[in-house]
Amino acid sequence: MKNFNKTHVSAGARTELHDLLKLTGAEISVNELPAGGCVPFVHSHKQNEEIYAILSGKGKVEIDGEIVELAAGDWIRISPSAKRQFFAFGEGLKYICIQVKANSLEGYTASDAVI
Amino acid sequence: MKNFNKTHVSAGARTELHDLLKLTGAEISVNELPAGGCVPFVHSHKQNEEIYAILSGKGKVEIDGEIVELAAGDWIRISPSAKRQFFAFGEGLKYICIQVKANSLEGYTASDAVI
Repeated sequence: MKNFNKTHVSAGARTELHDLLKLTGAEISVNELPAGGCVPFVHSHKQNEEIYAILSGKGKVEIDGEIVELAAGDWIRISPSAKRQFFAFGEGLKYICIQVKANSLEGYTASDAVI
Repeated sequence: MKNFNKTHVSAGARTELHDLLKLTGAEISVNELPAGGCVPFVHSHKQNEEIYAILSGKGKVEIDGEIVELAAGDWIRISPSAKRQFFAFGEGLKYICIQVKANSLEGYTASDAVI
């Protein structure tokens, strides 16, 4: 396996990176919801923790019936079983979604790096 | 465990999200290198795959002696054992670093989601 893979993400509704980057520990997508749009379904996960980063715009996510407002610079972790749905406000919402297997991380940074 | 955790990342040299978001499957950091700056060491990892997203600016990463140019919108996966060092060009470099255990992902998206 090559020691790295690189790609460039341009504007678009959704870019999935797993295959483009040959990811083995995550699936990552870059997403844009248009003004007033929403992910058209509520979903949860079997095993995967999701982490969302808001890149631009404003919106909200409903998590198990609780409303959380979102703006650029916000990050949110959602447990696998929580039911979630994202909505974009007037200017649209651009965000990253990172899927990882819950409880899969062992060491990290100081305990996993070799300098 | 709470079904979600949220935080906001403001400008700054480095924000580590593992503890802030109670992450269990990843460590994620948001980083800013100043113009002409660099990560002051070469490093690799024992177990963790790293995925970097360039948010703004320009720079380069040296991976096992190979130079890869970087600009906003670029994404790169680096294998655990590859030796890497990041450098910022004139305008600085803002990027996300995602650490996950290599080969830890099982299902994802269609095979892990419940709708």
